[in-house]
Amino acid sequence: MKLLVNATLGALLSVMSMPSIAADSPISKQQKETAQQLMETALKSDLAYDIVESLTTEIGPRLGGSEAEKRARDWGANLGKELGFDKVAIEEFTMPFWDRGHLHIALTSPYNQELYGSALGGAAPSEKEINAPIVYFRDIHALTAIKDGSLKGKVAFVDGEPMVKSQTGAGYGPSNQKRRIGWQHAQRGGASALVIRSVGSDSHRFPHTGMMSKKDDKWTTIPVIAISNPDADHLRRLHNLGKPLSISLHSGSDWQGEVTSGNVVLDIIGSEKPEEIVLIGGHLDSWDLGTGAVDDGAGIAITTAAAKLIANLPKRPKRTIRVVMFGAEEVGLLGAYAYAEKHEANLHNHVVATESDFGARNVWRLTSDVNPEATVLVDEIAKIIAPLGIIRGGSDVKGGGPDIIPMANKGVPTIRLQQEGTDYFDLHHTPDDTLDKIDPEELKQNVAAYAATIFLFADTHIDLKKKN
Amino acid sequence: MKLLVNATLGALLSVMSMPSIAADSPISKQQKETAQQLMETALKSDLAYDIVESLTTEIGPRLGGSEAEKRARDWGANLGKELGFDKVAIEEFTMPFWDRGHLHIALTSPYNQELYGSALGGAAPSEKEINAPIVYFRDIHALTAIKDGSLKGKVAFVDGEPMVKSQTGAGYGPSNQKRRIGWQHAQRGGASALVIRSVGSDSHRFPHTGMMSKKDDKWTTIPVIAISNPDADHLRRLHNLGKPLSISLHSGSDWQGEVTSGNVVLDIIGSEKPEEIVLIGGHLDSWDLGTGAVDDGAGIAITTAAAKLIANLPKRPKRTIRVVMFGAEEVGLLGAYAYAEKHEANLHNHVVATESDFGARNVWRLTSDVNPEATVLVDEIAKIIAPLGIIRGGSDVKGGGPDIIPMANKGVPTIRLQQEGTDYFDLHHTPDDTLDKIDPEELKQNVAAYAATIFLFADTHIDLKKKN
Repeated sequence: MKLLVNATLGALLSVMSMPSIAADSPISKQQKETAQQLMETALKSDLAYDIVESLTTEIGPRLGGSEAEKRARDWGANLGKELGFDKVAIEEFTMPFWDRGHLHIALTSPYNQELYGSALGGAAPSEKEINAPIVYFRDIHALTAIKDGSLKGKVAFVDGEPMVKSQTGAGYGPSNQKRRIGWQHAQRGGASALVIRSVGSDSHRFPHTGMMSKKDDKWTTIPVIAISNPDADHLRRLHNLGKPLSISLHSGSDWQGEVTSGNVVLDIIGSEKPEEIVLIGGHLDSWDLGTGAVDDGAGIAITTAAAKLIANLPKRPKRTIRVVMFGAEEVGLLGAYAYAEKHEANLHNHVVATESDFGARNVWRLTSDVNPEATVLVDEIAKIIAPLGIIRGGSDVKGGGPDIIPMANKGVPTIRLQQEGTDYFDLHHTPDDTLDKIDPEELKQNVAAYAATIFLFADTHIDLKKKN
Repeated sequence: MKLLVNATLGALLSVMSMPSIAADSPISKQQKETAQQLMETALKSDLAYDIVESLTTEIGPRLGGSEAEKRARDWGANLGKELGFDKVAIEEFTMPFWDRGHLHIALTSPYNQELYGSALGGAAPSEKEINAPIVYFRDIHALTAIKDGSLKGKVAFVDGEPMVKSQTGAGYGPSNQKRRIGWQHAQRGGASALVIRSVGSDSHRFPHTGMMSKKDDKWTTIPVIAISNPDADHLRRLHNLGKPLSISLHSGSDWQGEVTSGNVVLDIIGSEKPEEIVLIGGHLDSWDLGTGAVDDGAGIAITTAAAKLIANLPKRPKRTIRVVMFGAEEVGLLGAYAYAEKHEANLHNHVVATESDFGARNVWRLTSDVNPEATVLVDEIAKIIAPLGIIRGGSDVKGGGPDIIPMANKGVPTIRLQQEGTDYFDLHHTPDDTLDKIDPEELKQNVAAYAATIFLFADTHIDLKKKN
């Protein structure tokens, strides 16, 4: 069925009538035809799937700063060379390394039962095994209301509802509060540890890991553990029955000192304005629990494949297309900040930037935050990619993806091809983020959308650098 | 939507025309009306859900022979008393206890990666950590073809395809060969351990545990580990790339000596033929990884609730309805054999037996293996429960459920109300078998089907003991 849809789309793109293009259109007839050819080619190409299969299989999990992430950088640079990118660079930076270590967590009252948990990024180790009663908090607000020192000798458990599912992932921010700042209140209360309901929308027995926030530039000094939604349901039911709950936990997670990470930068050099950069990319690191297929092998694959399809054209587009495989995204956008810092003097030449970091389901919306001339361009691009099922979203939507934030904060215009995210937080940061979760046909739709959009940005005659 | 369906079904049952019943029908008009009232009541009753919620929450995982299974027996007996069963008994038996212990399993070449595995029931421990190359077998047939002693110093990995999904679960038997007998060939080859692709139809990162088969009354002497389907996919892809694979594993699973288990037997005593028994039930034990909601808290809940609804009628049916909560099913049908042995002299009075042990999705088919007169009864029952969406299946289908096998082998007639099983082997024997996987509305349909069917068997005037 999906194959049929794509075949039909291809045919549709071939025969669709070409409305006459006004003289002042930001897209020429030739550019439009090229964009349509790129989409047709993308819908038949296995390249993106081959890339994400290679990354997840040959490298596997690749936590920011780990030896595996180093292998991933070499893999990325080799891939760039093999695919014929004009310029391939690894830009290293240093970072503090947090390692998960071993965790054991179990209910010990009202009876013994193993729990499925994972330490949150930045969590401190337990010096020895913690055995303590659980104090139940129905949500993060209940925890934030506690008095200082009131949790001594206890483990705080913050429940809450499973994350609300939606195509935009809008439920993530609110649900994520307990992960981000919960520790500050548990620690203020003097708790021995904090356990939270996972930030995730699934009902599988997988904990969702993820980074906590620092406070006053400091990380927590207690273990902080996310447990799966079914485990949290279980604790809630026991609590509601009035059962006294207690827990045993031992966590080895800790900071391990400074290590090297890096970004991989692959360029297709522009033919007329090589100094102007259309930046796309994904992040190369993954959480250590899964193999980082959906988050973010898919983004690496989609953007690299899209650039390669453009490189296959008879002629380079006017501007440089840069694929950045960001390092150490999960652990605090460290590659993104390193990139923005290293290239600060040249950010004015980054005419647009976008990252694919929301999975591999079909793109359904194109949003933008660019100057008025470029907004007209985006409007026209949206018409060209509409046969892929993509609608034009807002023209003042901030953010081109997590790793784009630091450069967007310094004025780089952004767009976003947003993937359908209803199921994204079922897998997000869990062991279940593996290759089988990617639909090869939906991945092709992504590449088609990226290739057409990025080509048209890179080749347009309009002045993308014009200020708002 | 589901509520609506059930409400509609209830209305349908109320107003449906009553075809005239022939004088020689095995079901009277009054019996039919009572069966229909039972279905209506069941479709509105939360009792079964309350039971499975209580079992999974208050007892949790309950491996055969464990202290938790003992708590489950007490829970079952208390439940029987609270619900007003006429007779409540715990029938103990002894059994050898196998404990999972701790497992660590990881890929060590081509790189380090944790694998998601579980020891199979009956597996031996590793004396110390095993570090060995993997020999890849594409399926169980490839493993069975090896020469004696050809796997010394190696770990055998048996791949195969994920189990085929179907409503009958027909793919289980073939897929299960590697779990049942794989160890015999790995051990014959001299392998240090055997790793198999999980017997399961899902694509989640959960291993499926399960019991192995003995050979010549002996268990394996090597560790045997099932890994999740995504982990097996990963090993397959690496193997196909020609990468040399090696593994590290350390398993503490072992036999722990004789312990006590038991069956819980709850009777609603018949008003006219109390010696004749209509036996229903489920198994009280679960694997230790999940909380045994679908396998088989649901079966316990459905059959206990169905019997309770019949007990609520103004008059007891003619025959005794017996709910058996079997112990130690997962580890070898030990409760089932104990029951058949203990009650051997009285099995001729067991006029029909059936177990619910295939999850909690809607019942879609009623099969039977009973004498010709009783077959006519089943045909009529099928018409009465047809509004629940249940079809009449074969009248020579052996097997009323796993725990019924020992008594069926001794001549006890069986029927089966078969649940839709397409997703059953996604959860089967995994940590993911938890309460949230049960749809309360589908559970009600099950209770309706069981209550009507069992009542009609218990109250029929025909001679169910007549031989074939």
